[in-house]
Order: sequence, then C-alpha cells, then structure tokens
Amino acid sequence: MKPGLFLVLEGGEGVGKTTQWRRLASQLEAGGHDVVALREPGGTAAGDRIRNVLLDPDGTVLRETEALLFAASRAELVGQVLRPALARGAVVVVDRFLLSTYAYQGAGRGLAVDALHSINHFSTGGLAPTLTLLLTMSLDEALARMQQRGTPDRMERETHAFHARVHGAFAESAASAWQLRHPEVGPVVTVDASGTEDVVTTRCMAQLELRWPDRFHARAGVMHG
Amino acid sequence: MKPGLFLVLEGGEGVGKTTQWRRLASQLEAGGHDVVALREPGGTAAGDRIRNVLLDPDGTVLRETEALLFAASRAELVGQVLRPALARGAVVVVDRFLLSTYAYQGAGRGLAVDALHSINHFSTGGLAPTLTLLLTMSLDEALARMQQRGTPDRMERETHAFHARVHGAFAESAASAWQLRHPEVGPVVTVDASGTEDVVTTRCMAQLELRWPDRFHARAGVMHG
Repeated sequence: MKPGLFLVLEGGEGVGKTTQWRRLASQLEAGGHDVVALREPGGTAAGDRIRNVLLDPDGTVLRETEALLFAASRAELVGQVLRPALARGAVVVVDRFLLSTYAYQGAGRGLAVDALHSINHFSTGGLAPTLTLLLTMSLDEALARMQQRGTPDRMERETHAFHARVHGAFAESAASAWQLRHPEVGPVVTVDASGTEDVVTTRCMAQLELRWPDRFHARAGVMHG
Repeated sequence: MKPGLFLVLEGGEGVGKTTQWRRLASQLEAGGHDVVALREPGGTAAGDRIRNVLLDPDGTVLRETEALLFAASRAELVGQVLRPALARGAVVVVDRFLLSTYAYQGAGRGLAVDALHSINHFSTGGLAPTLTLLLTMSLDEALARMQQRGTPDRMERETHAFHARVHGAFAESAASAWQLRHPEVGPVVTVDASGTEDVVTTRCMAQLELRWPDRFHARAGVMHG
C-alpha cells in the first residue's frame, strides 16, 4: 500500500486557494487516486457547528476563543477523518492548516505563535503536512480579487492592515530559515498564483510530480506535448 | 470600592453543586451584594452554542475537542463577562472552573494535566478563583442522587469508572500538598455536602463569613439565635 499523503493548500484571501483546492482534488481523483478533500473549520458534525460560530458575520468572539475553536475543529477533523484516511493510504488535500493559524491568529490577531503551536500540538498530536502548497500573489492583486466576490464572511471583512499582516506572515513562511525554526509546519513550497486557473493547477500538479514522480506521473499531453 | 471576588462551586455529579450555586447567589443577592452567577460551559452567545455541542446527548466528540471547546467557552466567559464584573467589584459565583477541567478532562478522560493547564492559561490569561468551595460526599451517595434526576446529559451518562476517577481527582485536590503544586487553581476549601440544602448553604456561607467577616457578616438570626 502506498503511504498516505497529507497535502495542504495555503494563502491569504483572494489568491484562489479554495478554487485550486477543489481543482487539485478533482484532478487527482480523475487520475485514479483515493482522494479526501477537507476544509477547515468544519468537515465533521461538531466541526460544522463550530464553523458556524466562527464565520457568522454577526458574531463576535475574542481572539483566544477564535483560536481555541479553530483548534477544536481541527482536533475533530484530524482524529475522525484525516488520520484514518492517511492510514489507508489516501491523498488528503486540505484547505488551510497550521500555517493559516500562524498567519491569521498569530500575525493577524496578535496571539503568540508559541501558544498557538502548543494548542495545535495538543489538537493534532503533532501531525504535520507532507507538503504545503503556498499560493502567492501581490497583496494588492489578492485584495482586489477578494473584493470582487459576494458577501464577505467575518475574516474577509477585516481591515486592510489585518490582511497585510496575514499576507506578510505567509510571505515570511516561504523562507527556508523560517521553516527550519518551525518543523511542526512541515515543508512549504510556494506556487505563483497569478495566471489562469488552469495554469495555477498545472503549477500545483508539477510540484507533486516533482516530489513523487512514480505516484503523480505527468499527463501524456504535458510529457510529450 | 470593594475588590471583586471570584468564587467557584465545584464537585462531581450528584453532590448538589448547581443547587448550592443557585442558593448561594440568591442569598448573597438578598444580602445586598452585586452578584453575577455564571455557569460553564455557556454564559455568552458563543458559549451557549458551544454548550449545545458539548452536552448534546447524541453528539460524540474526541476528548481533545471536548477540552478545547470547554476552553473556548471559558475564554469567552472570562473575557466578556467575568473580568468586567470583577473590575466593578462584583461577587462572581461560578458553577465549575479549572478544577472541573482537571477532574473531568484530566482524570476522567485521561488527558495530561500539564496540557490542560497550558490551554486554560491561554484561555483565561491565568485568572485564578479567589476561593473554590468544593462540595464533598461519598461517591455512592453522589451517584445515587445523580440517578434520581431526569434525563442524563453526555457527562452524566458516563461509566461508573469515569465518575469514580472524577470523584478521586476532586478528593485529591482537597489536600494542601496538591494545591501547593497547582497555584493556578487558587485556594480550595471543602464543604460537607451531605444534609439538607439549607444546612449545606449555611456551611458555604460560613466559609465566606470566616474569610471576609466585614463583607459577609453572619445573619442576625445566626449570630443571636
């Protein structure tokens, strides 16, 4: 049996992360892989109820409460769904994980990364992604794209300064020096998120093909095209 | 202005803790005190929604999720309600706090007390009760009383072994040696919970009168009766 792979899509608002998460999952499924696509917060019965508390545009919770609710939803998702899927050798593709916690609750809200690390270690038992694909784009372009979408949720309605701090934290985490100090995040590779959806998906797939050539061999069209 | 007092009622299922919490709050209010009675989990908009997830008899969540949800509800209660009430000099009476976390999630569920401590420190900013009144009773008597009540919630439906572990943890926390190792819990005093509701309330009040004679002077009927 092939080992399970725990892949994470990361990035700030507007970079097309959720779109790429869906596309990547579909493409891997079409390629015959056992794929489990998960989204935080949510993905379990308790997690979905927690998600409603967290993303309610009319709700307001303290930043500590927010961090603990995200961690609770993550504990449930990891224990009930993610670990069993990895154990049977699936390719698990997750929309956001620990890097988002550091960027949003740490840089965005000003909570200490050490405390977030410890809470999340408790929540996941220290499970780290096999690979994180970090979608990157200039802050201006990302925010312009975010504003073209429908009704914003509680995170999307945050200030420009908040999104700038989040964007800065994601950019910082792309550096290998940062990743050496944070092994709990696992390896992070950046993917240029500008260009068409097709082009960006191809870039994501190329990262998988590069690391696991036997498992994700390039499509014939690309190899011989 | 008098300083705020943070009082906690603690004990396992069936000891009459919630009854005494209500009676103590009423009696203090009747005595002219500014009283805020709070109950965990819940007590805030987000906390009440978390309470529903936690106490749903049909729900099942992992023990880590449970601990994080309790901590999230506590963060919200402490920040939004408890700290402001203490700041204006109120007497805050809480049904359960950190000692219950150690007893239920630690001894009951088998989670490490160190991890629970660190998560709860994050959640409360290290706020400790001024005094905890720990209601004590033999395990057999408490469980017999618990079984006389209506539909059990998710905690009450736990096994005898679970309740025995919780009971043992509460008993252990009554020892001064234990309290010296756990300053984060604050001072704990035991109150014999056997006898009529009136008698137990008088015992609780006596502990307050003993510590703060000027603030909680004994009622005339008791002093001269």
